Amino acid sequence: MPYITTPDDVPGIRGLMNFRPDAALALNQLVQALLVDDASMTRGERELIATFVSSRNECTFCMRSHGAIAAHLPGCNEQTVKAVWADYNTAPVSDKMKALLRVADKVRINGNQVTLDDINNARAQGANDMDIHDTVLIAGAFCMFNRYVDGLGATTPDDPAFYNLVAEQRAKEGYLTKSVLMK
Amino acid sequence: MPYITTPDDVPGIRGLMNFRPDAALALNQLVQALLVDDASMTRGERELIATFVSSRNECTFCMRSHGAIAAHLPGCNEQTVKAVWADYNTAPVSDKMKALLRVADKVRINGNQVTLDDINNARAQGANDMDIHDTVLIAGAFCMFNRYVDGLGATTPDDPAFYNLVAEQRAKEGYLTKSVLMK
Repeated sequence: MPYITTPDDVPGIRGLMNFRPDAALALNQLVQALLVDDASMTRGERELIATFVSSRNECTFCMRSHGAIAAHLPGCNEQTVKAVWADYNTAPVSDKMKALLRVADKVRINGNQVTLDDINNARAQGANDMDIHDTVLIAGAFCMFNRYVDGLGATTPDDPAFYNLVAEQRAKEGYLTKSVLMK
Repeated sequence: MPYITTPDDVPGIRGLMNFRPDAALALNQLVQALLVDDASMTRGERELIATFVSSRNECTFCMRSHGAIAAHLPGCNEQTVKAVWADYNTAPVSDKMKALLRVADKVRINGNQVTLDDINNARAQGANDMDIHDTVLIAGAFCMFNRYVDGLGATTPDDPAFYNLVAEQRAKEGYLTKSVLMK
């Protein structure tokens, strides 16, 4: 049970979002722009950053939600997600992704932990300005979402079927469809 | 100089926002909803939470920006802002605000640091569900903004006149006016 009374029994972040729909709309527009709309990284790569940051922040709800979404996207699967959770350095992802996950992990600790060496290392592995920008903002955004969910004690379902069902919707429809916003 | 090439010389978060206007619009809609639009806390109280979290995250740009905005709003002033930066427990703010700043500080460290005792303590000082919701989401949002600014090495001006000028605009116009979005 969350620390505040939400309008219905929807678990996870959606129950909180129903409490404050104006903020929820902006939050959904943000993840749509960062994780779904066209960018230099694939949708799978961006969801991997989201689930990785959430795992390091120990936010089970976001980690499982975005891990399941990543696994539903082309070029990604459940094994890759689990390998990134365990140790991205040995996960089956590109050297560019490893360098970007390193940046994301620094951002997660605090913005001032990122050094020019981290950025130059990502560039040496092929990262461009948009990859770097999006990595930092996605990592920052999940530092917000993780805190929103756990700071208000949102309900975290155990059943993998919950995450799979939502992941299928998001992978297909993104974050701004009525079915996602309303339930 | 930020780590990525931004379209112009605008310092702080605005230079980064000009790099990715679609995400910027969502970010500005979020702060407008959280910090400006009607809510149970005053605008000054909400900006105090923003500058407090930024100060604890050592993000000078956001700390000074939102400190200056808070100081421009009714019921707040520069002395109160500086006292909150130094030690909110002895600052001239209400006991309810002290309890909410304690929640914000826990959220800042990590969402799972917030306990039911922290929430009950805030309620005992008069906080309602919206105060608690907004405190957690504002604290989370500034964990994102701070990381966005410092993780990309945005330029942090020294001149107090910069912060005062922007603060005057924001206090009067909020975060969605053209003058704020474009420069």
